[in-house]
Amino acid sequence: MGAKRVAVKENVLSANDRIAAANRERFQDAGILAVNLISSPGSGKTMLLERTVERMKAWLNVGIVAGDVQTRNDADRLVQYGVPVEAIETGGSCHLNAEQLGGVLGGLPLQALDLVFVENVGNLVCPSSFDLGESMKIVLMSVTEGEDKPLKYPAAFRRSSALVLTKADLLPHVRFSVDTAVANALSINPALRTFVTSAYTEQGLQEWMEWLTSQVPKH
Amino acid sequence: MGAKRVAVKENVLSANDRIAAANRERFQDAGILAVNLISSPGSGKTMLLERTVERMKAWLNVGIVAGDVQTRNDADRLVQYGVPVEAIETGGSCHLNAEQLGGVLGGLPLQALDLVFVENVGNLVCPSSFDLGESMKIVLMSVTEGEDKPLKYPAAFRRSSALVLTKADLLPHVRFSVDTAVANALSINPALRTFVTSAYTEQGLQEWMEWLTSQVPKH
Repeated sequence: MGAKRVAVKENVLSANDRIAAANRERFQDAGILAVNLISSPGSGKTMLLERTVERMKAWLNVGIVAGDVQTRNDADRLVQYGVPVEAIETGGSCHLNAEQLGGVLGGLPLQALDLVFVENVGNLVCPSSFDLGESMKIVLMSVTEGEDKPLKYPAAFRRSSALVLTKADLLPHVRFSVDTAVANALSINPALRTFVTSAYTEQGLQEWMEWLTSQVPKH
Repeated sequence: MGAKRVAVKENVLSANDRIAAANRERFQDAGILAVNLISSPGSGKTMLLERTVERMKAWLNVGIVAGDVQTRNDADRLVQYGVPVEAIETGGSCHLNAEQLGGVLGGLPLQALDLVFVENVGNLVCPSSFDLGESMKIVLMSVTEGEDKPLKYPAAFRRSSALVLTKADLLPHVRFSVDTAVANALSINPALRTFVTSAYTEQGLQEWMEWLTSQVPKH
């Protein structure tokens, strides 16, 4: 990678960081917990959000920003739960950036919200490098993906506050040790809070939602 | 994205394409089928390669290049099958590039090989934009990832010659329609050859290996 390319990359990142700081201020001013959800494609981000929002809207005002390379499928699934949803199609880009998020925040009733989920593009590498102005990143990983993902894609695990293992209902059918996966994740980031969940059986969802609620600033 | 950033991106891509052309010439001179395997993290690229190489080495001379963001785990798993394996650690980058591949090709006995598998970084977005000099791209997708992945990540499906559905042994335990997934993939790329496989039960592996063998130029 030449010096010129490095310099351009740094400019792009610092431009992103300035907008991320502005987004962060908007979230803080409104007393919002903003959660940036990161995982591989198909790890179950949208399904976890469906079950989580369906329950949590009983005691919190929740909003969602759903990012995808192409299609508004996730946003269309989420809007049926009666919460405000904004969609971002990145049109090829492998991650959300702060400008894209800032561009849709005006579509959410921020002053009325407690918690905003930002569902990033399905990608375990690129999204971890871009601050969106979120309060925290959370990494998801399904039990079908193998225990070594934290070692192979460490940045997403290093920069997250929590790890949500998804699809735990499939554990009887796959060769996957929860203990090994969690130990691998903690070897990268000992401060990770971990949850073992299934959106189908609802295993672990109560604990996950209680923890999220405890992180909301104005409650 | 400013004009300067676009220009730099185009320069990076055209530099990549020049090296890719050189890699392609090396493969063609040696009569090698070079296959660039693309999928999400944890879709089962390495496991499919393990079963495939274990069988195919009986009738073809196979080599492997295993790419990862970090660790040489995949290369270590593959080397036990007694075929030449080279590892590339991208050190943070979300895809292999042609220069990285060219840099390790000298470690493979190209004149003695018929087929080289290049296992790309686990990522359904970025690897599809970078020509490595391969004969063909092949996209993998596990039955746990949901049927909509071809619609949400169309580039990888548009640029591939075949789709390998993996983990078919889990079909009884997940809500996933093979017909819908294949129809979605064919809506993006009607020329895709599709295989439904399980590396555990070996379902579909014979058909997959016969097709690969038929694609090797010097046989």
